[in-house]
Amino acid sequence: MKKLHGIFPPITTPFENDELSLNRLKFNIEKWNRTGLAGYVVMGSNGESVFLTRSEKLKLVENTKKFASNDKLIIAGTGSDSIKETVSLSNEAAGLGADFVLILTPSFYKSQMKHEAFIKYFSSVADGCKVPVIIYNVTKFTGVDIDPSTVAKLSEHKNIIGIKNSSENIRQTIEFISNTDESFSVFVGTASVLYSGLTASAVGGILALANIAPDQCVQIQKFIEEGKLKEALELQKKMIPVNTAVTAKYGVPGLKAAMDMLGYFGGEPRAPLSQLNDADKKQLEQILINAGLMSRKVESGKL
Amino acid sequence: MKKLHGIFPPITTPFENDELSLNRLKFNIEKWNRTGLAGYVVMGSNGESVFLTRSEKLKLVENTKKFASNDKLIIAGTGSDSIKETVSLSNEAAGLGADFVLILTPSFYKSQMKHEAFIKYFSSVADGCKVPVIIYNVTKFTGVDIDPSTVAKLSEHKNIIGIKNSSENIRQTIEFISNTDESFSVFVGTASVLYSGLTASAVGGILALANIAPDQCVQIQKFIEEGKLKEALELQKKMIPVNTAVTAKYGVPGLKAAMDMLGYFGGEPRAPLSQLNDADKKQLEQILINAGLMSRKVESGKL
Amino acid sequence: MKKLHGIFPPITTPFENDELSLNRLKFNIEKWNRTGLAGYVVMGSNGESVFLTRSEKLKLVENTKKFASNDKLIIAGTGSDSIKETVSLSNEAAGLGADFVLILTPSFYKSQMKHEAFIKYFSSVADGCKVPVIIYNVTKFTGVDIDPSTVAKLSEHKNIIGIKNSSENIRQTIEFISNTDESFSVFVGTASVLYSGLTASAVGGILALANIAPDQCVQIQKFIEEGKLKEALELQKKMIPVNTAVTAKYGVPGLKAAMDMLGYFGGEPRAPLSQLNDADKKQLEQILINAGLMSRKVESGKL
Amino acid sequence: MKKLHGIFPPITTPFENDELSLNRLKFNIEKWNRTGLAGYVVMGSNGESVFLTRSEKLKLVENTKKFASNDKLIIAGTGSDSIKETVSLSNEAAGLGADFVLILTPSFYKSQMKHEAFIKYFSSVADGCKVPVIIYNVTKFTGVDIDPSTVAKLSEHKNIIGIKNSSENIRQTIEFISNTDESFSVFVGTASVLYSGLTASAVGGILALANIAPDQCVQIQKFIEEGKLKEALELQKKMIPVNTAVTAKYGVPGLKAAMDMLGYFGGEPRAPLSQLNDADKKQLEQILINAGLMSRKVESGKL
Repeated sequence: MKKLHGIFPPITTPFENDELSLNRLKFNIEKWNRTGLAGYVVMGSNGESVFLTRSEKLKLVENTKKFASNDKLIIAGTGSDSIKETVSLSNEAAGLGADFVLILTPSFYKSQMKHEAFIKYFSSVADGCKVPVIIYNVTKFTGVDIDPSTVAKLSEHKNIIGIKNSSENIRQTIEFISNTDESFSVFVGTASVLYSGLTASAVGGILALANIAPDQCVQIQKFIEEGKLKEALELQKKMIPVNTAVTAKYGVPGLKAAMDMLGYFGGEPRAPLSQLNDADKKQLEQILINAGLMSRKVESGKL
Repeated sequence: MKKLHGIFPPITTPFENDELSLNRLKFNIEKWNRTGLAGYVVMGSNGESVFLTRSEKLKLVENTKKFASNDKLIIAGTGSDSIKETVSLSNEAAGLGADFVLILTPSFYKSQMKHEAFIKYFSSVADGCKVPVIIYNVTKFTGVDIDPSTVAKLSEHKNIIGIKNSSENIRQTIEFISNTDESFSVFVGTASVLYSGLTASAVGGILALANIAPDQCVQIQKFIEEGKLKEALELQKKMIPVNTAVTAKYGVPGLKAAMDMLGYFGGEPRAPLSQLNDADKKQLEQILINAGLMSRKVESGKL
Repeated sequence: MKKLHGIFPPITTPFENDELSLNRLKFNIEKWNRTGLAGYVVMGSNGESVFLTRSEKLKLVENTKKFASNDKLIIAGTGSDSIKETVSLSNEAAGLGADFVLILTPSFYKSQMKHEAFIKYFSSVADGCKVPVIIYNVTKFTGVDIDPSTVAKLSEHKNIIGIKNSSENIRQTIEFISNTDESFSVFVGTASVLYSGLTASAVGGILALANIAPDQCVQIQKFIEEGKLKEALELQKKMIPVNTAVTAKYGVPGLKAAMDMLGYFGGEPRAPLSQLNDADKKQLEQILINAGLMSRKVESGKL
Repeated sequence: MKKLHGIFPPITTPFENDELSLNRLKFNIEKWNRTGLAGYVVMGSNGESVFLTRSEKLKLVENTKKFASNDKLIIAGTGSDSIKETVSLSNEAAGLGADFVLILTPSFYKSQMKHEAFIKYFSSVADGCKVPVIIYNVTKFTGVDIDPSTVAKLSEHKNIIGIKNSSENIRQTIEFISNTDESFSVFVGTASVLYSGLTASAVGGILALANIAPDQCVQIQKFIEEGKLKEALELQKKMIPVNTAVTAKYGVPGLKAAMDMLGYFGGEPRAPLSQLNDADKKQLEQILINAGLMSRKVESGKL
């Protein structure tokens, strides 16, 4: 199996006139191909996956694979509450080039999504999938949380090979690591704690921020691997306000607006999301300038 | 338009060997046809809708319509975060007999699901649907909540004709009523506050409990309409522990187990849900006995 | 024992130059004495009790008793996490005229404040108190919630005679009623569900709103007791936006500002609370006008 | 000013027959004096401060100072919602030997405890206190959370010199550090993220775990300062289950039971807390054994 390591952006899905734009996807991926990113996550939370039709999803996987350079891994977000549909979509995605699938914790019946249900769900999904499964824990979107003891149990399944933890709770991430063996890959799921996850031996990050600041995310990991903790921490501190802006504060619309400001194609999110208003764009721009991701424009001197 | 009034069960979906069982569906509906229920909600939260494939969903609508007596209205739960898919599924369901569609608030990007997004989402969906739309607010499953002011605005759309509020917060239900005009139908969404919703002029209830206690739910409304508040309240009090058992405490597995105990077909839920264990079944049985829904079995005398 | 029934305001504490103002207290109480209020709660949540010194608390009880007309009951909020201090303060308050004490659920160690701890706490407090105890459940301030089964158990103690439930969850209030016998007094704790609590046989309300709209609160109960549900519900609907404004939206500063607008003395809250800014005052005024609590001022025509 | 650095236990308060036991306090402190702890926090969250009378609090400060060796700093937890009482108690504590005061965020009126209120509260308290103030942010007990921007502003006050952050959210801790200058001391407030906080340049930890594992906590910091990250992380991983047991899982009763098992005096907590039952004690013992904090007893071989 390909060994997992490094930084992956859960890539945004480009739309033009509300339709999937493969040209814009190609443009973004070709730019990312020239960075040290380890691969791409399609249909992650930042990919507006819940707004896509099934055929759009498959087209996205196929084309991400097509545009990606050979050294980049493809991870497809194919999970839903239905085990049957999850397996079916995962295997079609695998057939189109996905190396791994990233599977959301089921979440509709929140109060019953505990140990037993997670074991049952992920075991069945992993049994059925042709490619290895990465568990995706993202409480802010699902309202459920997976326990370290459940992850420990699931890590014994030979087709469940890792987890993305999008929580800022680093204790939980450390427990995911300490309760599983070395072959199990724990990913930091939010750039705000990339430094802390990596110094706790996470293998890498799957990070919204890597859409707009791939070099900085890759550099944080590089610094840490070289023992340059101080430099890594300084870069981490600089990235926190940017990450907050493109996730908690402005969400996908903010991430797409930042992409437009930084030379990628962001474009509009799909309804019911709305693009940022002008005041928010100004604020976002200032945050990018403060972090050194873009230079102060002449006319923004008055800010 | 057909005037909405009365009690609707969000019917459970019967499975045998993990496959949809139309025979069992027929059995249940024929029993319910002989009650005072106003109609049926297919693919509501208790219908394990999130575990069904698209074609199973359509088969459910078609057959519910087929088995239902002519006086029963059919409401189909067809919402998802994707506007396009919601409209498409709704219209296919309408073609197969759905009189109304019940549309969940979109919920994945929770922090952005506020006024603007709800207005955009429900307006677009209602524009596209051939049958009237009922908004479905169920925070315990979605993690989002819709404001009375948003509902007031949406009620102005001629194809948005009501709301099911599954919250036990009766202040919110009263505000949904007081902020909309009389043509807008506000449904109580949980039997625990049926009495309180109806005395506040809700038009009826869409209630998990109505799967197993249709007569009692219908009777509460009848008592209130006859001015017999005391009798209604007594029946309400009796139903609360049962309702808690088949919703908050044991969920769909509990509801299905209770159906089996009370002469309906419940059967197993789909994975990752599990059927109740024996100890929980005993407890549930006792709750049904205490509420007078089943008689004490000889061998349960030792309980 | 005096039978509990009716509407009680948890009275605000008047300050001038940050000091307790007994004159202003007298002024307010004399106005309230002329209404149908059943009595006064001193040192409730709206009384800024947590900002008062012990001696200020006792002075408040003493003077509320002194200014209250003979027909008004005095309930003193004397609870804290410490059992010893709660008993001691309660008994001093009783010596100064408190007929009952209203005791907050202990709440600091939230995860351990369950059945056992509540039984232990309230039993000990009730054993030690010279006057009867009313349990005070207010999750929005304490972060803990008391179960109906716990209240049922506590209601067996002869010195625990009632509960104020400040939740808008009317199912819980109904359970407090149905799980206890008739001698146990369940109070609605927020005016937003006064109608629903009273139609479910609550004995009355302890309501922030009763500081500024005592007649309306009393009238809702009167209407219900006369079987005029429609009129009661209409008045309830009118009061909801006002109640939201002086509780959830603007808190104690909003309640005090509304008192100033309606002929009572409100004045400034104690730090760290701040008085409302002018924009919020305008909004609040408009809400009071809309509810018919004050007439439109000539100069407010431009609103 | 004394420079802050190192590990502090928020010491438990020993009771015998429900009374403060100075002998037991002396016994514990003399044991801790022989470790590398930097000092003691009296009346922290683990000190059952909310169950103590005012005079017991002062006696505790006085005697902790008396029993502590000269090299240990004394920090007293003296905060409550009342500014006046907080200043008064703080200054009395300072007079009895407290070098610093640890002041809880005010929390009763949760929805209003935002930036403005915190600025007003902590500025007033710090103005009035004779000794420097450390902010105490502990959302699990208070239900409120303080923003990095608020802490940044407060750090400009010359008498507010640090913060204890009890959240496991390490992003927030990093922001407290990056938004303040080097003279402001950020403490990790829970041992579960001690490693992560220290590698992010926190100055030390105020940790329940340090009551029972002072050497291990001190050693984690020592390893990090020596650049031995791997060793520090291994020790951190070992401590997480113990920390969970004596905080989230079993709380103060668990911490006290563990003290009894490890040669300190723990004893009973005050009501309404209860001591651990035997089954929980067995489990706790096993956790301590697994972490290497105590050796397997002969008779516990059957576990």
